[in-house]
Amino acid sequence: MLSLQDTLEIINREIQAIQYPETPAGLYEPIAYLLTSKGKKLRPAFTLLACNLYRDDVDAAICPALAWEIFHNFTLIHDDVMDKAELRRGQPAVHKKWNENTAILSGDAMLILSYIYMAKSLAGNLKPLLDLFSRTAIEICEGQQYDMEFERRQDVSEQEYIEMIRLKTAVMLGACFRSGAIIGGADETDGQNLYDFGIYLGIAFQIKDDLLDVYGNPDVFGKNTGGDILCNKKTYLLINALNSANTTDKKELLGWLACHDRLEEKIVAVRGLYDKLAVPEKAGETIRIFYEKALTALQAVAVDESKKTVLKNIAEKLIKREF
Amino acid sequence: MLSLQDTLEIINREIQAIQYPETPAGLYEPIAYLLTSKGKKLRPAFTLLACNLYRDDVDAAICPALAWEIFHNFTLIHDDVMDKAELRRGQPAVHKKWNENTAILSGDAMLILSYIYMAKSLAGNLKPLLDLFSRTAIEICEGQQYDMEFERRQDVSEQEYIEMIRLKTAVMLGACFRSGAIIGGADETDGQNLYDFGIYLGIAFQIKDDLLDVYGNPDVFGKNTGGDILCNKKTYLLINALNSANTTDKKELLGWLACHDRLEEKIVAVRGLYDKLAVPEKAGETIRIFYEKALTALQAVAVDESKKTVLKNIAEKLIKREF
Repeated sequence: MLSLQDTLEIINREIQAIQYPETPAGLYEPIAYLLTSKGKKLRPAFTLLACNLYRDDVDAAICPALAWEIFHNFTLIHDDVMDKAELRRGQPAVHKKWNENTAILSGDAMLILSYIYMAKSLAGNLKPLLDLFSRTAIEICEGQQYDMEFERRQDVSEQEYIEMIRLKTAVMLGACFRSGAIIGGADETDGQNLYDFGIYLGIAFQIKDDLLDVYGNPDVFGKNTGGDILCNKKTYLLINALNSANTTDKKELLGWLACHDRLEEKIVAVRGLYDKLAVPEKAGETIRIFYEKALTALQAVAVDESKKTVLKNIAEKLIKREF
Repeated sequence: MLSLQDTLEIINREIQAIQYPETPAGLYEPIAYLLTSKGKKLRPAFTLLACNLYRDDVDAAICPALAWEIFHNFTLIHDDVMDKAELRRGQPAVHKKWNENTAILSGDAMLILSYIYMAKSLAGNLKPLLDLFSRTAIEICEGQQYDMEFERRQDVSEQEYIEMIRLKTAVMLGACFRSGAIIGGADETDGQNLYDFGIYLGIAFQIKDDLLDVYGNPDVFGKNTGGDILCNKKTYLLINALNSANTTDKKELLGWLACHDRLEEKIVAVRGLYDKLAVPEKAGETIRIFYEKALTALQAVAVDESKKTVLKNIAEKLIKREF
């Protein structure tokens, strides 16, 4: 069995080895810049690990795994343009280091490149992998669209939020596992269970991310807490607070949403409201429920329990992390 | 044999019949808006006509044909953002009717959608069609990158310009024909010859477009002439003028490039310089050379001459048009 570390080494080696055409440099340099920046690269590792549940040799899964990583980075380039984000992984975002046109066009080229890597799959798997890839890709666009629409709404329900993060974040994790299972030769049921494992894990992961942005220890979390509060991001926490607050609390919360200065004060006040409304406890409980669902889906996968330890440990680490 | 009109009717019917998911409407409405706007839809027709050279029933070519049209429209959405174009086919461009973020994200979804349609090909053709599609798609991104880079350069050679329009415009025409040939069951040589036919036709077509923008009769051309001159577009004409002008003429030309008012005067003066330098004659000669190359490639295609009449007539119409 490969460890997470083993698969990350394979992925990092393969990403370093990608040969880009020399010209036009303006198209390919931003792609290499982003792909070789310090991302966690968990998604392609998931594909290799899922494949490894069914076969020792995971070589056939390497190109599809890279496809997911390239696709993921394509979404980051374009999302950063849309969200006007300045930084990505501690470095200037592509549209900041170059310009918006470069970010749009190099992002487009990355999306095409991700299909090129997915299409390097063996003939028998090509069609199911492509169908999974395209369906997932479209769903991620839908998730980004909902996310942008939610920014203009104050009445997003918890259910709508969870559907949004399922599309924007979770389906890719599910599909990374499922594509590895397909290449490994798993049956449909196992593929579906691994997909569900990724979906539930992804939802729990995103809510944990929302929680850490407000309550994480900045020394371990690696970035200042409260960023989501300052930009009024419609997180699980804010949506729950808006939906559970009484008239007085809601008025105060909306007042803070309309406030664009007094930054430290805003963070403290909104966090205080979250505490009063027991939002972190609610978030913790929802994370627990989805984490349990993920483990149940993994349990149903018909391979030796011992083989699932790697995935179980990753899930535990992602959900119990304090950073 | 199908006529051009027959194939356009099939394409228009199929585009009208595309079912989009109902939500998120903000993602799918711009796609439907652009796809149902009044484009010529020649590209998908080319795929059906090339297929029809080899078989009567072109049904298997419909989805791949639609893939090209969807892909072409994806490039238009993103190019219009990059070029800050206000209008597309006489209607507000997507980023104007909605906003830039919508144009970026709906464009991304269209690119994915184009792969979904290409992947509906029959199993035996899937891999070669996908490889052709992705290679062409990346080349088109490269062409757009060169086009943007040329805007900042005054020393673009004619050869560089022709390579740019080969990538940006011509490879898609070539690939539309070639994909139809693959689905029709043509051999590699015929596929290559039809590809070359499209490439040469595409290059001739683009230079004709450059020429008509300056010398077309606005009543028949459908838009005012001189638009490329006003925005200093690096067309075949401008590049040739810059490269063939003596010191005095070049100084005058560069002076006009630096001038952003006196619009009517600028058009008349630059057109006057083109005339003096015999640029339109040079362009006409280059168009003729590529048109001849296109016909030679078509001649080499190993099907009955009678079957090629449709393609020959289209080529003649595109090159000899005055609009």
